[in-house]
Amino acid sequence: MLGNFAYCNPTKLYFGDDSLKYLNDELPKYGKNVVLVYGTGSIKKNGIYDEVMEILKANGCNIAEISGVMPNPTLEKLYEGIEIARNHHADFLLAVGGGSVCDYTKAVSVSVNCSDDPWEKYYIRFEEPDCEIIPVGCVLTMVGTGSEMNAGAVITNHETKMKIGHVFADENIMPKFSILNPKYTLTLPHYQMVAGIYDIFNHICEQYFSGEDDNTSDYISEGLMRSLIESSRIANKNPQNYEARSNIMWTATWALNTLVSRGKSTDWEVHMLGQAVGAHTDATHGMTLSAVSLPYYRYIMPYGLKKFVRFAKNVWNVDTSGKSDEQAANEGLCAMENWMKELGLVMNISELGASEDMIEKIADSTLVMESGYKVLDRDEIIRILKESL
Amino acid sequence: MLGNFAYCNPTKLYFGDDSLKYLNDELPKYGKNVVLVYGTGSIKKNGIYDEVMEILKANGCNIAEISGVMPNPTLEKLYEGIEIARNHHADFLLAVGGGSVCDYTKAVSVSVNCSDDPWEKYYIRFEEPDCEIIPVGCVLTMVGTGSEMNAGAVITNHETKMKIGHVFADENIMPKFSILNPKYTLTLPHYQMVAGIYDIFNHICEQYFSGEDDNTSDYISEGLMRSLIESSRIANKNPQNYEARSNIMWTATWALNTLVSRGKSTDWEVHMLGQAVGAHTDATHGMTLSAVSLPYYRYIMPYGLKKFVRFAKNVWNVDTSGKSDEQAANEGLCAMENWMKELGLVMNISELGASEDMIEKIADSTLVMESGYKVLDRDEIIRILKESL
Repeated sequence: MLGNFAYCNPTKLYFGDDSLKYLNDELPKYGKNVVLVYGTGSIKKNGIYDEVMEILKANGCNIAEISGVMPNPTLEKLYEGIEIARNHHADFLLAVGGGSVCDYTKAVSVSVNCSDDPWEKYYIRFEEPDCEIIPVGCVLTMVGTGSEMNAGAVITNHETKMKIGHVFADENIMPKFSILNPKYTLTLPHYQMVAGIYDIFNHICEQYFSGEDDNTSDYISEGLMRSLIESSRIANKNPQNYEARSNIMWTATWALNTLVSRGKSTDWEVHMLGQAVGAHTDATHGMTLSAVSLPYYRYIMPYGLKKFVRFAKNVWNVDTSGKSDEQAANEGLCAMENWMKELGLVMNISELGASEDMIEKIADSTLVMESGYKVLDRDEIIRILKESL
Repeated sequence: MLGNFAYCNPTKLYFGDDSLKYLNDELPKYGKNVVLVYGTGSIKKNGIYDEVMEILKANGCNIAEISGVMPNPTLEKLYEGIEIARNHHADFLLAVGGGSVCDYTKAVSVSVNCSDDPWEKYYIRFEEPDCEIIPVGCVLTMVGTGSEMNAGAVITNHETKMKIGHVFADENIMPKFSILNPKYTLTLPHYQMVAGIYDIFNHICEQYFSGEDDNTSDYISEGLMRSLIESSRIANKNPQNYEARSNIMWTATWALNTLVSRGKSTDWEVHMLGQAVGAHTDATHGMTLSAVSLPYYRYIMPYGLKKFVRFAKNVWNVDTSGKSDEQAANEGLCAMENWMKELGLVMNISELGASEDMIEKIADSTLVMESGYKVLDRDEIIRILKESL
């Protein structure tokens, strides 16, 4: 059932190997007080920092910096960024980095003028901002999260061991523009590249594996998955293949900008499991997802059997003739497993630093989602986490 | 090759059987002088006119009307609408109808404050507007053109027998919002429904059948085509199937809102042939496309053979094993032909009122596109038109 919904995604995307120059078209639309937000320094090594600074200076910007945004941005870091942006009377926030930097920058953008505590307001009560939002632009250097074209922002609270994502409803929280240069992703280590690829794939799965009826969103999802599987195999063998990296980058954006969730209830339980593992191990996001995915999908398969058969047929080209639905569905998940191993993804949480004695605590940090094929109870979460060890 | 491009599509979509109420959220964003634009009266019969008027009045709008917008909006009608909007000091234009009404309203929106002649400026010189644009909203009652989420506007000049579409580059020309209620499409005659379905399908084909390399856009296109084929078969048997009509409506929007053209050169020669037929016969747009499509695709097939094989496999599930590329590609086009006949589409231009003695004149009105698999010369256009008789 496609149902009733709204769709609005006004982010302007500049895609390609010459895309940074469009920063010159965008900056004049905002005030001069710019806060540049970036991670732990790779943009200084690969020259992107210098290129961006040159453009900011040429446009007469007054620049403050928030540096050292970590892979799982913390609440403490958020408080620090809010202070810097306030003191600078920020007109505009420019994120240069991957999904964590973009997520973090959006979290700052809704918090600078917020009188409440942002953790309480946005991550416990899941409220929308009622203050002025500072506009955000992104220069993307890593691929996977889709943060460049959505209103999501994940923040980790180390004190409470909670890694929580809030997808805001207001499209004004989406970046005003994002610059997507596939060249910037070519220098990424293989581990990060494949973690990003799996993050993309799982974003699509979380939306695809939900709902009783098949609709246009499922068909678009299958197209995106097929594109990603093809491009990932090329990039895995030759990470310098610009064309494959371009298609991966573009697929990532469309996997999580709300399009393929229209008319779907959407699941997100793999992300809840993965984020709980991440909060306890600080492991790379995409790898936490790959490590828990197959135990999860094999467990819920009987509850969404028809969709898993469709997945086998339409995504993995499994010939289903003469096979039971269970056999066909299983073959689809086996094909997915083979592809994951081919890419060199982490297939268990032990490798990420989780151990049997942490399982109960990880389970306590796992939020239970209610719109997938099976609502998990605590025992089921523990069982899936144990099978992920 | 995905290449370098920009993407921006800020139109807000309200989808579903309750979507008209969101007009109340949108109207307060604009001034009070509203021009209501509609067609030849069906919205008065089915009650949509009254519903819209009630909302406009409840929001205190001063309303002027442009009525009688015809299926292929003419330049004379455009001049008339510009006058009405000028005299009303229009702040906002509300299109209620199908693609023709939406197209027409966008053409008015860029012409009201334009000091040049709009035909010369926009349809001969293909310039962008340099005047203030009147914002546009759409309430869609027919499905097919995608006009509800793009910056295209087709206008027909009867004097010169030219039907020309201008797809503007400026995203501000896209509707600010569009209201998509699948219920409104349920009362459409079967002929109009299937003409719209083929218009959607051909929009995807025009973008898909171009370029040497396969990229993410091709995969998304295949997903959209598969979705449309499935839903169209359901709707053809039971036009009152709301779910099928919903999926068709949603597919139409994404078939022509620039997404699946990213990284593609795009062809559009079928539209040029069909529009030339339309300018001489005033036939329904979708049927002019269906009538010329197979002679065209069979003619260009050898020039884009690999893509036609992929089309057969990925869109029509043709088993290609043991077959030559030509055989496989042909089977794909045969499957497409069977589907078109199943829907009851017009398969030749004679049925639309074209005759052998008109062929040369239609050929003279056919624009030659340069980015498909084969750039046609005049003899080839005549040959294809004759095969379409």
